Amino acid sequence: MNNLLRVDLTHGQIAREPLPERYARLAGRALSSRLIADEVPATCDPLGPHNKLVFTCGYFAGTSLTSAMRTSVGGKSPLTGTIKESNAGGTVSMRLAQHGYRALIIEGEASPGTLLLLHISQEGARLLPADEYRGLGNLALAERLRARFGERVAFATIGPAGEYLYNASAIAHSDADGRASRISARGGLAAVMGRKGLKAIVIDEVKGFVPKPVRADLWRQGQRSYTEIVHTHPATKIYREVGTSAMVRVMQGHGGLPTRNYRDGRFELFENLSAETFVKNITERGGNPTHACMPGCIIRCSNVYPDQNGQELVSPVEFETIGMMGSNLGIGDLDTVARLNRVCNDLGLDTIEMGVTLGVAMEAGLLPFGDGEGALRLLDEVGRATILGRLLGAGALITGKTLGVRRIPHVKGQGLPAYEPRALKALGVTYCTSPMGGDHTAGHTVRFTNDHRNAAEAVEVSRRAQVMFTLFDCLGVCIFAVPQMRDRLDVLAQAVSGLMGFDIDADGLQQLALETLRVERTFNRAAGFTKEHDRLPEWLVNEVLPSTGTTFDVNPEEMDRIFAHAGF
Amino acid sequence: MNNLLRVDLTHGQIAREPLPERYARLAGRALSSRLIADEVPATCDPLGPHNKLVFTCGYFAGTSLTSAMRTSVGGKSPLTGTIKESNAGGTVSMRLAQHGYRALIIEGEASPGTLLLLHISQEGARLLPADEYRGLGNLALAERLRARFGERVAFATIGPAGEYLYNASAIAHSDADGRASRISARGGLAAVMGRKGLKAIVIDEVKGFVPKPVRADLWRQGQRSYTEIVHTHPATKIYREVGTSAMVRVMQGHGGLPTRNYRDGRFELFENLSAETFVKNITERGGNPTHACMPGCIIRCSNVYPDQNGQELVSPVEFETIGMMGSNLGIGDLDTVARLNRVCNDLGLDTIEMGVTLGVAMEAGLLPFGDGEGALRLLDEVGRATILGRLLGAGALITGKTLGVRRIPHVKGQGLPAYEPRALKALGVTYCTSPMGGDHTAGHTVRFTNDHRNAAEAVEVSRRAQVMFTLFDCLGVCIFAVPQMRDRLDVLAQAVSGLMGFDIDADGLQQLALETLRVERTFNRAAGFTKEHDRLPEWLVNEVLPSTGTTFDVNPEEMDRIFAHAGF
Repeated sequence: MNNLLRVDLTHGQIAREPLPERYARLAGRALSSRLIADEVPATCDPLGPHNKLVFTCGYFAGTSLTSAMRTSVGGKSPLTGTIKESNAGGTVSMRLAQHGYRALIIEGEASPGTLLLLHISQEGARLLPADEYRGLGNLALAERLRARFGERVAFATIGPAGEYLYNASAIAHSDADGRASRISARGGLAAVMGRKGLKAIVIDEVKGFVPKPVRADLWRQGQRSYTEIVHTHPATKIYREVGTSAMVRVMQGHGGLPTRNYRDGRFELFENLSAETFVKNITERGGNPTHACMPGCIIRCSNVYPDQNGQELVSPVEFETIGMMGSNLGIGDLDTVARLNRVCNDLGLDTIEMGVTLGVAMEAGLLPFGDGEGALRLLDEVGRATILGRLLGAGALITGKTLGVRRIPHVKGQGLPAYEPRALKALGVTYCTSPMGGDHTAGHTVRFTNDHRNAAEAVEVSRRAQVMFTLFDCLGVCIFAVPQMRDRLDVLAQAVSGLMGFDIDADGLQQLALETLRVERTFNRAAGFTKEHDRLPEWLVNEVLPSTGTTFDVNPEEMDRIFAHAGF
Repeated sequence: MNNLLRVDLTHGQIAREPLPERYARLAGRALSSRLIADEVPATCDPLGPHNKLVFTCGYFAGTSLTSAMRTSVGGKSPLTGTIKESNAGGTVSMRLAQHGYRALIIEGEASPGTLLLLHISQEGARLLPADEYRGLGNLALAERLRARFGERVAFATIGPAGEYLYNASAIAHSDADGRASRISARGGLAAVMGRKGLKAIVIDEVKGFVPKPVRADLWRQGQRSYTEIVHTHPATKIYREVGTSAMVRVMQGHGGLPTRNYRDGRFELFENLSAETFVKNITERGGNPTHACMPGCIIRCSNVYPDQNGQELVSPVEFETIGMMGSNLGIGDLDTVARLNRVCNDLGLDTIEMGVTLGVAMEAGLLPFGDGEGALRLLDEVGRATILGRLLGAGALITGKTLGVRRIPHVKGQGLPAYEPRALKALGVTYCTSPMGGDHTAGHTVRFTNDHRNAAEAVEVSRRAQVMFTLFDCLGVCIFAVPQMRDRLDVLAQAVSGLMGFDIDADGLQQLALETLRVERTFNRAAGFTKEHDRLPEWLVNEVLPSTGTTFDVNPEEMDRIFAHAGF
């Protein structure tokens, strides 16, 4: 796994290069962000020829370690203008590792009108014409790719949304069953892929591949401890039984469930969206309420949601989508949410960004809150790239500005996910100060405090969460193992040391995370971002959230010093 | 003229206040920018309640000094996010001065759905309901206002574009004949006025008003010299005979006439747009090729352009519109340009921003270059606020991003005017470094060098031009007096000293301009702008302009130091 594959689309050249020594200890987000920072001019046009798209593996890709095969996708985001890492589960990094790659760098751009496919096999990597797939949705494309290249290939693809260069576009990755269902959702990186003229990356299986840990005993010891801790921790049980849908009731309880474009934090129909309804629907219809997106994952937070006839509708339905396309749109019906979700996955759209965007469109009066069929019609416009569809595909900020809406929930142009920052202030700090723009996965604070409305401790809580979540992204380990492992970083360090052969301890992992955040923030500063951009929109500071009676009142100067202790 | 009128639309309160001592020496742009910097939080939402809109007079408003009654309109721009001063000719500042006001501050916002009119008369100022004018274009509104308040009132109005909160919206001012034809065009300040719920400002005449110069002899001396210099200078003759249309041939000669969305710098049909055709059309049809927008102006650069039946079509047609709605759209027909111009004036749109936007829309394939009727249809969509219309009304950057266009000519979100920065590099430096975003009036370099392609001297040339043009904006004197007066700032200083009573010399005027630029750039920095925003788009740096064989190759670090000698 000590190579990188460089694909130059301008010249159609492909090179296998040994991973430079300076990257030897880096993986996942640490590696993707360093590559972008080192190779992409910070001020470049994200949809211009100087941007690059990188795919990197975590340390454990290709091993059998549970929940530890996230694929990091990095680039400069056309949505936010910041550096971006958007990781997903599935099988891409496992297959990349099998071919000996820790990173794949896509650079340059194919000549206008050209659409290509990158096929990585044991014979090497090659670019193939992909015109036949133009305009195809991710779901049909997945079937075509599996039929052509084999059932067990991994792939990363873009749907029409990426081809149309939408800011809200997302890259779909194959899951353990070959579905195009694991999504690098945030930041519009599919548009970067689309602009470069790359429709799909397909990676063959390498049979019999077994990675060789450098220090086998240490590795086995770390692996065993890790597996046991994850297996026995109560958080795993919740993820396995109800997935992320448990969060609906939790957020309703906090008064932090975005409702009708963030007008409220409690939704009167929340029971219809709750974990109980969710599991009941899935179970009664013969779906799967607990599904592994990565082979061998024992957390199994994913699910397969069937329609009323028992046909698979979409996999998975996650809390973010339930929140942003359910309560945030005033839609109290999981089936409608699942249908919206399916369309987004097929077109290759970020359900969070589209949920925020549709909420803003409803606020503008384009359709009434609660109008699920209307929302589906709007997504149809997005898929057909009508003017309205293009506008919505450009994301919440552009949609809201164009339609004259003041209440646009976003930070750095990225729509806010399904946690109200006025109710969960530390998460609001994450939205503001993360190098990624408004993103909950950048430092999810729900389990980092019990006092979510406390503005005084919000910065400290967010800092701890951001470092921890960045750390997991750098490992390539799923953030759904954070609750289980956050106090046992020594075990993760042991596994890294055993597998890779270099010494790292728990503190070293934290330093790695901090260093990654420093690299990312430095990139953003060089791109023109300042503390003035590390803010929620004015209305979230001034407007009282009815469910809690609070505004976002965290001291901005304290936010500006969030990483000052680390010197950046 | 030592008062300010403060209108609080949130509470419906109006107050006449003496101008604070700290503003005693300020007028025009110096005053508008200081007021905005002092009273508006730099990071506020431009369309939120904390932004303000100010109208200020130059020193000479109300006197008979020629070409010296520009009205400065200031605020935080919804188009660029920067501080903005957008001045216009016409009669507003003359009338404000007659009532004793040097500044009018509009703050707060009327409750949603309310539309108001501010009427300033000798009985005082009052807010009147303006629902009857909702949706009305500037042309019809002007007639209604004159019929209701008197033929000699001055007014500033917004058309539908301002009501719809378009970034490309513009404020129309009454000209000397009561037309709504002098435009505070750039930066979308009409949207600020629209968001505040103010449709129009109407100011009665004060009969028999004669300002009293503090030092009458000095004033008379300055006035006499100024008038003589302007009157006899050859530049005045050109402005009077052909107006700004002379610039078509000049720019064609430089290879700097934007053609087909900046794809080229020479237009094969430029003769159809030239001053000769322009004057011929006007003269043959009984229009007026030389018209004063401000009473008593002897430069008379304005014009009244008739249609083929001799009916007044629009006043004036200016070079910027000819360039951006003519050659930039591939339209080689002045009548079509004039029709587009009329629609923009009536809707209350910036012809430059709309020219850039339509060019980008043509680049996106919405209609072919050269399709004038198609362009008129698109403006009709803008007027009807269809989704496409709203998108175009949001300006070139949002339109281009939404339609997937890379070649968007803009700086800080403001569309570039009709001078190619690759052919006129010093003007490119002005676009980059002006606090106003891409704006030629911020430092027009055409007469400041003969070597427009010389990148080495471009920063120095732009600096001199920016200081000079800012100086004229601070005086409230038309920039079309710059060629005549730039070497006789002592005369202008004499006139200011004589009228106002405080001592200022030529050097003092330059310091005032520099101080104004410092205030503006400080505001922008506090709003989150950095040197990374002081750049042309990547493609203008990389793509060779066919007409000249040049790119924009000015050293960015030199641009960053443009005002370093002045300590900012």
